[in-house]
Amino acid sequence: MISGILLDLSGVLYTEDQAIHGTAKSLLRLQQSGLPIRYVTNTTRKPRHKIHQQLLELGYSIDFNDLFTAPMAAHAYLLSNQLSPFMLIHPDLMDEFADLSCDNHNAVLIGDADQGFTYNNMNRAFRLLINGAPLIAMGKNRYFMQQDGLSIDAGAFVTALEYAADTTAIITGKPDPEFYRSAVDNMGCDMQHTIMVGDDVEADVNGALAVGMQAILVRTGKYRDGDEQRISSDQATCVQDFNAAVDWILPRINQP
Amino acid sequence: MISGILLDLSGVLYTEDQAIHGTAKSLLRLQQSGLPIRYVTNTTRKPRHKIHQQLLELGYSIDFNDLFTAPMAAHAYLLSNQLSPFMLIHPDLMDEFADLSCDNHNAVLIGDADQGFTYNNMNRAFRLLINGAPLIAMGKNRYFMQQDGLSIDAGAFVTALEYAADTTAIITGKPDPEFYRSAVDNMGCDMQHTIMVGDDVEADVNGALAVGMQAILVRTGKYRDGDEQRISSDQATCVQDFNAAVDWILPRINQP
Repeated sequence: MISGILLDLSGVLYTEDQAIHGTAKSLLRLQQSGLPIRYVTNTTRKPRHKIHQQLLELGYSIDFNDLFTAPMAAHAYLLSNQLSPFMLIHPDLMDEFADLSCDNHNAVLIGDADQGFTYNNMNRAFRLLINGAPLIAMGKNRYFMQQDGLSIDAGAFVTALEYAADTTAIITGKPDPEFYRSAVDNMGCDMQHTIMVGDDVEADVNGALAVGMQAILVRTGKYRDGDEQRISSDQATCVQDFNAAVDWILPRINQP
Repeated sequence: MISGILLDLSGVLYTEDQAIHGTAKSLLRLQQSGLPIRYVTNTTRKPRHKIHQQLLELGYSIDFNDLFTAPMAAHAYLLSNQLSPFMLIHPDLMDEFADLSCDNHNAVLIGDADQGFTYNNMNRAFRLLINGAPLIAMGKNRYFMQQDGLSIDAGAFVTALEYAADTTAIITGKPDPEFYRSAVDNMGCDMQHTIMVGDDVEADVNGALAVGMQAILVRTGKYRDGDEQRISSDQATCVQDFNAAVDWILPRINQP
């Protein structure tokens, strides 16, 4: 039975700047069921308010406070550990970290920096890391879907730095258990009765299963043929798209 | 007993463009012992003739044919497998691969591309790899020594592509067993009586030990405190520099 839902955004509701057919209506059906929903994303090319604005423009009715992003979690981590990071992130994301001190870098923050992934920036990060700075990564995704095809994602550059500096990144987005827990707690649910819906078999599906949630893999966005073979347990299902996911969920709602 | 020597170059004989004190004299002593020597390098920022020219300018007397480079091995591999690679390499190295077809890329060749490691180039490589192209890497070194300190090396970017595309690179330089074997065969030696001298505990020392050679780690170049703790067997020793390595080797020569 299901008491709460975590929903990935890009590749589930929309691809690039295009809503996936029928998803606005399906989301409304889900919302009208009364089930709590939180939206969890590792997107690091846009600040939270821009993601929210885009959702509204695409026709989804979503409360800003229900949006849980990897940069939010990274910001909280950096602040509570009093870290002053060198930021290998997208220029559009800089504002979200503007309140952090950037003198005397003692950490590296990494997201999808896009054109910011230059040799010199990677080397600067590497030199901080071999001197003991921690590596804070907003996700470790392998690739994401762009209009012209799959594209290499920040996780590759996280792995590059981990390898060169012989260190392990602290992941603040999906599939970090703390990240999932904060969203589930916020709904007042428990892991067992929460289902995660996503297009990423690793961060979304296997990440959710690893913390005891249920999961649905959708065959949209970055989904590739055969991804369902990589699901780590039978506590997950794979359906055509978000519309089919809602059809699957609604009869299984745990009515109080 | 020792019948042949493999010698790493950068970090052993010289650092950047500076000979390490006493090494020209020490190399001469080694050469005068009559022991065969081959020079094995993963350097991919310079073509082979430039490396040779630099060695002569720094005062080392080395036969061009005794120089074994990772790009040479990569070239042979690409040619024998009729591959037409997208090249993520340093502009100075392009000439060494100028005879290969570059239409309809069906492979990715990666070396230390330096400023060529842009997001767009990495993404182009990624897209070929997820379509099944093999990844040919001229080494997988983590870092190398520059005048202003340790710098991130091509191995990090190799790892990034392996992770994103879920593939494993074919390594054509050190520590590829085939690469070591070709140099040892060229001397007419066997692995057991050949000793490898280098500053890289992984590619040079552990790589040589893995194929049955002896090895010496020198505390120059990219050597970092504690590297000797990472040596994988007791068939290796660690000394101050190349001069001390020659002192260690000479009394152990296997005179025919």
